[in-house]
This record gives sequence, structure tokens and C-alpha cells, in this order.
Amino acid sequence: MIGQDEIVSFICRATGEVFSTMLGLEMIPGDAYTESNPAGPTDGVVSFVGLAGSWVGTGSLCCTPGFACKISSHLLMGESPRPDQAVDAEVLDAVAEVTNMIVGNFKTMLEESLGPLGLSIPTVIFGRNFTARSSGNEMWTTVPFDCDGERLDVRVCLAPSRQPHHAIRPAPVVM
Amino acid sequence: MIGQDEIVSFICRATGEVFSTMLGLEMIPGDAYTESNPAGPTDGVVSFVGLAGSWVGTGSLCCTPGFACKISSHLLMGESPRPDQAVDAEVLDAVAEVTNMIVGNFKTMLEESLGPLGLSIPTVIFGRNFTARSSGNEMWTTVPFDCDGERLDVRVCLAPSRQPHHAIRPAPVVM
Repeated sequence: MIGQDEIVSFICRATGEVFSTMLGLEMIPGDAYTESNPAGPTDGVVSFVGLAGSWVGTGSLCCTPGFACKISSHLLMGESPRPDQAVDAEVLDAVAEVTNMIVGNFKTMLEESLGPLGLSIPTVIFGRNFTARSSGNEMWTTVPFDCDGERLDVRVCLAPSRQPHHAIRPAPVVM
Repeated sequence: MIGQDEIVSFICRATGEVFSTMLGLEMIPGDAYTESNPAGPTDGVVSFVGLAGSWVGTGSLCCTPGFACKISSHLLMGESPRPDQAVDAEVLDAVAEVTNMIVGNFKTMLEESLGPLGLSIPTVIFGRNFTARSSGNEMWTTVPFDCDGERLDVRVCLAPSRQPHHAIRPAPVVM
């Protein structure tokens, strides 16, 4: 089992570590909150990566197009983006890569309590006024981070798997 | 290992079974094709669910808003949608549920060759002119289906996991 406080603390550590070591950016966590399946229109860049094992879930980053460009330029060149930088395939790949690192880091922390988990391939969405919805009534934990006045939300949804967990098969019975 | 032909055949079987048994709709598969990380603007409804284990990947459905409403009304009421049916949370949940069933079915077929895989929680996107991109240069296999003149694309991306696979741990060495 895993508590809410632990999830929040793992999100803060995983995000802080990746941003400071890989991007040279300091992220200040704000007050975490939980909500049940937030729907409604969204703008900007949203990424998702799946977690699967004895528990299943999704890790997600959500930010403005400007902050997505900042992630990309700091990851690839260690500097601030050009003023004319637009969200292109390279920027979306950088956001996917950082999502993979943060959620991978978070997954490693979770595995101490929940056992082995797999990480799927990240997907990144960029658009205006789209709706992104996860199925079911899972609770999402969101930690808003501040980075020089810009905001990044890191969100996680996690629940015990309802499918039979095949990761550890019983030993075959020898008659 | 798993071949391209097998993936296409699993997608066809998994999709056909779910639509015929759960929705009472017949899906006619068209010519499958593969492409490397298709990007670019998209309209309509796109769902994603992650697969993780010794192989990792994503399963995705892509259709028009009208076909999403058809999925929802056939799943929930076994009938055609009202003409004024709009894409709302209920419709997105129905698409998520059908994605879960199809990719879950596909996963069961894969497991015979690839061993146990986990399935994450589906996400559904609805919007106009958004970009959905997966990271890396993975190849996607797409099977376009026809259902009474309407189209549904079922897409799968699958690659061996680059992370150490923890699902089967070596037995502890007793000294």
C-alpha cells in the first residue's frame, strides 16, 4: 500500500531531481491537491505515460507551450529558448523524454512499496481547447510547481490493478 | 519475438471480437500499414493505453466524433446514437472502456509469445487540430476498419523494453 503523503513526496523528489540535474532548473513545489477525474477543456502541452504492474496508473505533465519550449532548450542546449521558438516535434520529444525520466524516477521510488512496475511509452498532446480524460473514477494527485514564475503541473493517478497480476506465476504443479 | 503479420492478425481479431460481442457491430479490416511516429494535426477522438512488461508499447483508437458517439450508444444501450448526441464525458468513458477491452484482448494474445504484460489506464483526447505524438522512433502498425461506411483506426506501437525487466526476479542465492 502507499499513502497520499508518500505519493506527493515522491512526485516532488522525482520532479526536483530531474529538473535540477538534467535541465539545471529549480522547481518549487506548491500545495498538492487531489481530484476525481478532472475533465474539461485544456490548452497547452500535456504528456502521459502509463504504469502497470500490481498497481496501474498514469503519470502526466501539463504546461504552457512556452514552458514546453523551455524544457526542450534546457534539455538539449542547457540554455533558455529563443523568443521565436515554437512547439515543434523536437519540443514534444523533449517533453516526452522529461516525462519518461520523472515518471521513471517516481516508479523506482514506488517499487520499494508496490513491487515491480512497468513504464509504457509516453504520448504528448499539444493543442488548444481539447479535452483529455482518463477512464473511471480514479483520483488524481496533482503537484503544481513554480519555475521562475512559470507553472508545471505533475499529476499521477494510481490504483491497485483490477486485472489478475501475472507478473509472478505460481510454480507449475508436478504430479 | 513477434512478427508484423501476427500483430496485424491480433489487432483484427481483438477488435472484431469486442465490436461484435459487446457492441453488436461488424468491423471490416482494411489494409494494414506501418509508419514511424506519425505526427501532425489530428481531429476527433483519440484514445491511448500503455502496455508494459518485457515489451512496452501503446494501443490507440482513433475515430470521428460521430463514430465515438456510435461506440457509446451501442455499448450502453445497444442502439444507434440520437442525431443530437454530442461528445461528452459519457462518450469519452465509453471509448476508454472499449479501448481497454480491445487492447486487453490484444495483450492476452501477445502474452503467449511475450510473457506477462501490464495494461495501464486509458486516456482519451477529444479536440480539433491537436497534435498527438509518441516519443522516439517506434514503428506504429495501423489497421483501418470500416463499419457501415465509418472509419476507426486501431494502432499499436510495440518494442522490446530498454529498461531492465523486473517482472521475473532471479531466485535469491542461499549461501
